[in-house]
Amino acid sequence: MDRSQQEKNVGNKPKQPVRNEWTKNFSEWFDKILDETEIVDFRYPLKGAGVWRPFGFKIRKYVYEILRALHDQTGHDEALFPLLIPEGEFLKEAQHIEGFEAQVYWVTRGGLDELEIPLVLRPTSETSIYPMYHIWVRSHADLPLKLYQVVSTFRYETKHTRPLLRVRELTSFKEAHTVHASYEELAEQVKEAVEIYSTFFDELGVPYLISRRPEWDKFAGSEYSIAFDTILPDGRTLQIGTVHNLGTNFAKAFDIKFETVDGKSEYAYQSCYGISERCIAAAIIVHGDDHGLVLPPKIAPHQVVIVPILFANVDQAINKATDELLNELKREKIRVIVDRSEKKPGAKFYYWEKRGVPVRAEIGPKDLENDTITLVRRDTLEREVVQRSEATSRITDLLVRLTQSIKQRETDYIQSHVHRVESIEAAKEIIEQRLGVVELHWCGQETCGRSLENELTGAVLGTPEDLQHSQDGEGICFACGNQSTTLMRFARTY
Amino acid sequence: MDRSQQEKNVGNKPKQPVRNEWTKNFSEWFDKILDETEIVDFRYPLKGAGVWRPFGFKIRKYVYEILRALHDQTGHDEALFPLLIPEGEFLKEAQHIEGFEAQVYWVTRGGLDELEIPLVLRPTSETSIYPMYHIWVRSHADLPLKLYQVVSTFRYETKHTRPLLRVRELTSFKEAHTVHASYEELAEQVKEAVEIYSTFFDELGVPYLISRRPEWDKFAGSEYSIAFDTILPDGRTLQIGTVHNLGTNFAKAFDIKFETVDGKSEYAYQSCYGISERCIAAAIIVHGDDHGLVLPPKIAPHQVVIVPILFANVDQAINKATDELLNELKREKIRVIVDRSEKKPGAKFYYWEKRGVPVRAEIGPKDLENDTITLVRRDTLEREVVQRSEATSRITDLLVRLTQSIKQRETDYIQSHVHRVESIEAAKEIIEQRLGVVELHWCGQETCGRSLENELTGAVLGTPEDLQHSQDGEGICFACGNQSTTLMRFARTY
Repeated sequence: MDRSQQEKNVGNKPKQPVRNEWTKNFSEWFDKILDETEIVDFRYPLKGAGVWRPFGFKIRKYVYEILRALHDQTGHDEALFPLLIPEGEFLKEAQHIEGFEAQVYWVTRGGLDELEIPLVLRPTSETSIYPMYHIWVRSHADLPLKLYQVVSTFRYETKHTRPLLRVRELTSFKEAHTVHASYEELAEQVKEAVEIYSTFFDELGVPYLISRRPEWDKFAGSEYSIAFDTILPDGRTLQIGTVHNLGTNFAKAFDIKFETVDGKSEYAYQSCYGISERCIAAAIIVHGDDHGLVLPPKIAPHQVVIVPILFANVDQAINKATDELLNELKREKIRVIVDRSEKKPGAKFYYWEKRGVPVRAEIGPKDLENDTITLVRRDTLEREVVQRSEATSRITDLLVRLTQSIKQRETDYIQSHVHRVESIEAAKEIIEQRLGVVELHWCGQETCGRSLENELTGAVLGTPEDLQHSQDGEGICFACGNQSTTLMRFARTY
Repeated sequence: MDRSQQEKNVGNKPKQPVRNEWTKNFSEWFDKILDETEIVDFRYPLKGAGVWRPFGFKIRKYVYEILRALHDQTGHDEALFPLLIPEGEFLKEAQHIEGFEAQVYWVTRGGLDELEIPLVLRPTSETSIYPMYHIWVRSHADLPLKLYQVVSTFRYETKHTRPLLRVRELTSFKEAHTVHASYEELAEQVKEAVEIYSTFFDELGVPYLISRRPEWDKFAGSEYSIAFDTILPDGRTLQIGTVHNLGTNFAKAFDIKFETVDGKSEYAYQSCYGISERCIAAAIIVHGDDHGLVLPPKIAPHQVVIVPILFANVDQAINKATDELLNELKREKIRVIVDRSEKKPGAKFYYWEKRGVPVRAEIGPKDLENDTITLVRRDTLEREVVQRSEATSRITDLLVRLTQSIKQRETDYIQSHVHRVESIEAAKEIIEQRLGVVELHWCGQETCGRSLENELTGAVLGTPEDLQHSQDGEGICFACGNQSTTLMRFARTY
C-alpha cells in the first residue's frame, strides 16, 4: 500500500483528547489514576512512602531500561553503594551538610544498643561514593571514572507529601557520579549528561526546559547546577532531572587526587547527575486525559490489547483470528495481551483505555465477514479498519505514529506555556493564572533575581541553558533597569 | 562433523582443576578473589557494608535475571515495598519480634527532630508487606497473590562480618510473599518455591541439600522452614535459600482475611521465601580454583575472550580473523570481548583466567597458517585446536559442555561430603576434620536433637526434605536409643 492510501485510511487531522478533568482537577486526576490503575499505593502506614504494584513496577522497569541503556552506551558502568553513611563522612563537605541536614534520617540504634557513630540514610550518595573514589582514584589512567546506580534515597520531608512527586522514600533514584582529569573534560561530561537526559525525556515524550539554576538555588556543594523542568497541567513546573558540575569541591573534601601524566598530584574534577521517579510521574501526567493513562509504547506494559467480540455463531472463527494476530504480534516482539474475560466489550474498552494501552485491536463478526481488524489508537481514540493481512504492519506503524504524535502534542503544549513578557504586570498575570513559565530580562545580580522572585510570588528556575552563549537574552533588567545579557525564568513550582 | 569426531577433538577425560590454595585457605582465597577481580569492595567506612563494582554488578545482574525469570514464569509479579517500617507494624507478630529485635537498625531522628514513632530498617519484609496485604486481600477472587521484590535489607550484625556471607546491608535480597485461600494451596506453593530454588541453583551449578529446619531453628513466626544449604571448601555449610510455611500466623497478626466462595470470612494462608547475595558467593566459591574465578557461562559478564597474538608480519591478517570471529559470536548473542591491550599474551591469559571467562579463543600466526583457532576452557584449562570455519559452533558447544561439567563436578563434591554414619564417634570425627555434613538417626524429640548438637559441636541443619514421606530414615535414635523415623543433619555452619 502506498503512503497516500495509508494516510487516507488514517482519517483526518488527529482529534484532540478530552481533558476537562485533567486540566481542572489535575491533582485529583493524578491521585485517582495512580490508585485505580494500581501503579502505586500510598496507603502504607508511613506517610510519604509508597508501594509499587505490579502494573506500576512494569512501567518503572521499562522506563529505567531506557535510562540504563543510555548510560551503558556512553561508557557508564552500573554499580551499587551502601545506603548507610557514617556521620563523619556525611559531615565532610560544609555546604552539602547545610543543604541536607534538616532533611536526613538518622539511624541511632542497632538492636538494643545506641550506636557509637550515628548513620545517615543517604539523601543522595556523594558522601557514600566519594570515600571509595578516594581509594580507587590513583592516576590519570584511572580516569575518567563514570559510575551510576539506581537506588532508594531518603528525605525527611516536612512539607505535604505527594505520590511520586514529593516522597520520603525515593525508590528510583538514578544517580551518576563521574571523575575527570581536567576541567575541560568535566565540562564535556556535563554536556554529555545534558544530552543523555534530553534523549531520555524525548524517548518518554516528556517536554522540558533546561535552565541553569541561579547561585542561590544550586545543589549544595556544586559549582553550578543545570535542571530539567516540565510544565504540569496546573501551570506549575516540576523539576525532573539535574546535572551538577562539582568542580573540585568534593575532591578537596574527600581527598580525591590523581597523579597527572607529568607526575604531579592534583585534585580530581567531578560531576553528578540524577533522575528520580518523578520522570515516571511526568510521563503519566503529560500524556494523560480524562479517560486515564496514555502510555508511550516503549514504557507500556501492554502495547496492544486484542479484544475479541464474540457472538455464539462465529465464536470459533473469531478466536482463531485472535490467536493468529496474537502470534503474529508476539513474533514482532510486541507486548500484546488478549482480554478473554467475561466482561462486555464496552467494559473492556473502558478498562484498557484507563490503563493507557496504546493500541486496541477489535475482532468482531463484521471484521470476520470483511476480513478486517478494527484498530483504535489510545491518544485520539480514533478508529480505523484495516485488512487482516496488513494488521501487524499497520499496528507497528501506528505505535510509531502514536509515539511521535503524543510527543509533538506535549512539545506544543510546553511551547505555548513559556512566555517572554514585556512587563512585570504581564508576568504576574501569567503566573497567577497558572499559564506556565515567564522569561524576564535579568542583569545577573542576585539581589535583582530575589526581588523579582518576591514580586512574582513565583520561584526562580534559572537562565535558559541554550542562552549561555547567545545574544538572544539582551535587554533591560526588570528589577534594576540596567543592561541585561540574559533571561531569568520564573514559575510556580512543585 | 559427527559426534565421535567431536569427542576425539575434545581430548581425554577432563583434567581436575588445581585447588590447593582454594582448599587449604579458602577464606583468604575468597577475600582475595573478590578484591582482585573487583567484584565487591568492603573497604567502605562502615563495617559489613560493601560496594558492588561494575564487574561484580554484572554478575549480580545476570544471576538475578535468572531468578526473576523463574518467578515471572510461575505467576509471580515483581513489586517494591518501602524500607522503613513503623514500630507498631514491626511489633505485631510476637515470635517475629523476638527473632529479630536484637538485629534491627532503628531510625529515631528526622532532620533535627526526634521521630514520634521510631522506624525499623527492614531485616526482611513481612511487616512491611502485610499491612498492604491487609488492605488488598478481600475475597477468594484476589487469591492467590504472589509478589516478590529484590531489595536491600539490614541486620545489625554483632558477629564478625564477611563479604557477601555475613553483612550488615544485604543488597540483594529476593523475597517472595504469597497468600492463598486454603492450606492445601499453601502447601503446593511451598513445593513450587522449593522447585524454583532447585532450578535456580541448578542453573548456577551450585549443589545443595534441602533440609527441614527443626522447630527450634525455624523462621520466627513460621509453621516450618525449609532451607537450602551448600558445602564450602572448608567443610562448613552455607545457608543459601529458605522457604517458609507461615500458616495463618501472620494473617492473624495483620488481620489478613478473605471472603470464601461460601461468603464466610477466613484468615488467609501465607508463605514467604528468600535468597540473598549468598547465592552469588556460593557460585563464586564452589566453582573457583587456584587460578581464580570459574564463572558458569550464564552469569559470566564475558563468556568468551578473544586474544589475538600479534606478530609484526601477520598483524593485519590476525586482526581480520579476530574481527570475523568477534562478529560471528556477537551474532550468536554470545558476550564476547577482545583483549587488544599492549600486555603480553601470558599476562592476558592470567588476567582473564582470574576473572573466570569460560572460554578463551587465541588467534596466533600458527592458527592463521593452519586456518584454525585455539580454544581454552576455563574449568580444566584444556586446550583444543579447531577449524576456523567451525569455531563459533564449537565455542557454543563448549559453553554448554562446560556448564554441565562444572555442575557435575560440584554435585559429586557435595555427594562425597554428606556422610550417613553409624556412631557418634564417626560423626564427631567428620565434623572435626571438616569433611562436611553428617546424617544421624533421630527420634524427633527436641531434647535429643539439642543434645546431639552439643555433643557434636556442630549446628543442626534439619531433616532431609526428601525423607518426609519415605521409610529411608528408620533406625535407632543416636541420643535416646528409641525407634527413630527420620535423620537429622549436622555440620559446622556459617
